[in-house]
Amino acid sequence: MFVRKPSDVQDNPVDMEGVQGVSMRLLLGRADGAPTFAMRQFTVKPGGHTPRHQHDYEHGVYIAHGSGTVEFGGKDHHVAAGDALFIEPNQIHQFRADQGDELVFLCMVPTTFDCGKPTPGS
Amino acid sequence: MFVRKPSDVQDNPVDMEGVQGVSMRLLLGRADGAPTFAMRQFTVKPGGHTPRHQHDYEHGVYIAHGSGTVEFGGKDHHVAAGDALFIEPNQIHQFRADQGDELVFLCMVPTTFDCGKPTPGS
Repeated sequence: MFVRKPSDVQDNPVDMEGVQGVSMRLLLGRADGAPTFAMRQFTVKPGGHTPRHQHDYEHGVYIAHGSGTVEFGGKDHHVAAGDALFIEPNQIHQFRADQGDELVFLCMVPTTFDCGKPTPGS
Repeated sequence: MFVRKPSDVQDNPVDMEGVQGVSMRLLLGRADGAPTFAMRQFTVKPGGHTPRHQHDYEHGVYIAHGSGTVEFGGKDHHVAAGDALFIEPNQIHQFRADQGDELVFLCMVPTTFDCGKPTPGS
């Protein structure tokens, strides 16, 4: 159990193919004993983007600050602070900070997928 | 898959014993096909509070707006926008908007608990 300020959590650059200007704070994860889901906070610098990819687990997303574009379901969706998104398993998706400001969002994932494998970044 | 603005989601008063001035928007839930976790947005009016209770599943919480006090682990914790909280299963907890402003927070829960029962409010 805890209260954490995002500023107290290390903001780690995300080093993956297809990523530009993205960092992640793990607000709640497996190392904390989270039994079901993890909470990550991503910051995408203006002009940056997450990888355009898909995986076998879902995302529940909340846009905390800024605005940007999220591609999923074969379309671009403009998003802004306060929006909630559901990206189903196996859906191609990408977050882009293409509106001139930083895009900060929470991205929740299950702590395990595919019969118990630990979810990357959880 | 979707993008939802909280204002597009019905804000339902929470009618439970021990609750005052609380409403909930279900941003992502079982009815959407969420496989693992639900995202709910709670608004607590100034002076209001959630029930002081415990249950057999965890909360992952993100304070979206405002400030207040959260009791858990036998202590009061002052919280403000941007804070992340982890409340473990079976921990007594209560959210109070006792700082003069509205307290708005996301509260994630697993969609099922206790071997497959649907989690209330998911």
